[in-house]
Amino acid sequence: MKEHNDIITLAHGAGARRTSALIDEVFQPVLQLPTQDDGAEIDHRLVVTTDAFVVRPLLFPGGDIGKLAVCGVINDIAVQGATPRWLTACFILEEGLPIETLRQVVESMARTARAAGVQVVAGDTKVVERGHGDGIFISMTGIGQLPPKLELGVGRICHGDQILLNGTLGDHAVAIANAREGLGLDPPPQSDCAPLHTLTAALLSAPGVVFMRDATRGGLATVCNEVADATGLGIVLDETQLPVNPRTAHVCELLGLDPLYLANEGKLAAICRPDATAHLELMKQHPLGANAAAVGTVSDQVRGVWVRTAIGGLRPLPMLDADMLPRIC
Amino acid sequence: MKEHNDIITLAHGAGARRTSALIDEVFQPVLQLPTQDDGAEIDHRLVVTTDAFVVRPLLFPGGDIGKLAVCGVINDIAVQGATPRWLTACFILEEGLPIETLRQVVESMARTARAAGVQVVAGDTKVVERGHGDGIFISMTGIGQLPPKLELGVGRICHGDQILLNGTLGDHAVAIANAREGLGLDPPPQSDCAPLHTLTAALLSAPGVVFMRDATRGGLATVCNEVADATGLGIVLDETQLPVNPRTAHVCELLGLDPLYLANEGKLAAICRPDATAHLELMKQHPLGANAAAVGTVSDQVRGVWVRTAIGGLRPLPMLDADMLPRIC
Repeated sequence: MKEHNDIITLAHGAGARRTSALIDEVFQPVLQLPTQDDGAEIDHRLVVTTDAFVVRPLLFPGGDIGKLAVCGVINDIAVQGATPRWLTACFILEEGLPIETLRQVVESMARTARAAGVQVVAGDTKVVERGHGDGIFISMTGIGQLPPKLELGVGRICHGDQILLNGTLGDHAVAIANAREGLGLDPPPQSDCAPLHTLTAALLSAPGVVFMRDATRGGLATVCNEVADATGLGIVLDETQLPVNPRTAHVCELLGLDPLYLANEGKLAAICRPDATAHLELMKQHPLGANAAAVGTVSDQVRGVWVRTAIGGLRPLPMLDADMLPRIC
Repeated sequence: MKEHNDIITLAHGAGARRTSALIDEVFQPVLQLPTQDDGAEIDHRLVVTTDAFVVRPLLFPGGDIGKLAVCGVINDIAVQGATPRWLTACFILEEGLPIETLRQVVESMARTARAAGVQVVAGDTKVVERGHGDGIFISMTGIGQLPPKLELGVGRICHGDQILLNGTLGDHAVAIANAREGLGLDPPPQSDCAPLHTLTAALLSAPGVVFMRDATRGGLATVCNEVADATGLGIVLDETQLPVNPRTAHVCELLGLDPLYLANEGKLAAICRPDATAHLELMKQHPLGANAAAVGTVSDQVRGVWVRTAIGGLRPLPMLDADMLPRIC
């Protein structure tokens, strides 16, 4: 049995001594918040984004909820064309959580943020009773700086634009499914969890990027459907060009999953013109774009989202009612 | 039994159609987010703060978790001397939550934000399985603008400074205790939950404010202990000057609680000089400061926090290990 001091108790979230001790022992040495006040001063032309993370299990091959939170928020900022700069983190902890688990997560969060050049500037922790939470939930807010004059958005998408993807689909979802459901794959598949802001910066060095979106919950299919809905234009994906790791494809076949709908945590779709050759080359030169591909085109000749199959037919790719796997991020 | 459409299901958090429907039906009409993208652009000289809210029950006399989140974050910004401008909100919902409850909370959040002149600019929702959450958890981040040249901070506190409080202690905690534990008080005591940014703006119109802090979890006693710890100075509170609602005092006696340690959600301590008469007057003229009082002084003649009793003795007011009531905010 664990010692009382090794588990999170309600006292750790009560705002009194035990909270201070937890901050001093676990959060502060790792995150190195610039101040222990509730707020921090920041400055000028900015975007802000926020996300809650409830992934299960908390630690998985290729990442953990702390790394995932930082990457998720960085990616939301990066696809807007901004440079991620500051993060805030809220933790909702379940009574009984081993402090060691929390420590691992906080360290991973700090490491990922530091490597990405972003700073965690404020945080908060609450604790709920055993059975009223699930280990660790994290909410993270990010603030980034937009370069002058950059304009991205669905409103700029036109017929003929190319859709690029920076690598294989579905790896995060399959890693989580294997870890959670005990599929027993050996070696275990790895999540693609990664911060994409240097990739987006590289892409934006060439003119003609009109829109970017990270393909998380709901996968590439959901991104494409959102674009089709917002623009009234159609999207045709080329099945033969969709990069899927053979191992991921195999798991998907076994479980009846479609990698187009599965969550990724290190993949983005970029819509570019005129022919996107330069953009594809920039992606391929980046470590997170080795398997990049031009996977489809925007078209005013169809409505909705379609996949052109290897034998030349078109199958519809509708928005699903629900994600195939819950608690994926 | 409720219809399937009246309860939150896992599909509502899955990032697909049901999520869009929930946003369109519940969040968007009420919060009126300026964009449905994951981020929003904001601008210049700023402070940022973040807080998670896990209060139980979700709705209580005088407020609810939505109003509480907005007030809590506004107050964290306001006590830094800044004007609250933008908020982001993350919701972690439990499967089985009635949508009507969520709607009430979101509406209350929006109403409170609108009345305070702040804008919710981004949000996110996740859903966890029944028994892995507790109705609604909210994480909220706020961004505010600092006026030029304002400098507040514990480092500016000196011997002789006065401590002002804008009203009665412990009302939020007693309202929650009554609602949660079924104490049966009739009429039920009301939380003091309120946004304090206009009060802080009024206070700052007079020179001599050196530090402000809202007295939430852990109450005024915890604020004073944090100041004493940070400065090495002592604090002496005057028991005869501490404003406590008679009904709150009565409940505290019955339950063995000390209002000095109880959470407030519409109270702040302001440390002012030279004699704080003008500041006290400004507080009293504000609707949220009718019961304001000068409750103590900062002293280099003692260490730690003390209460001067009605008969002239000094009793210590140490930091407690844990809050007296969990899940208070």
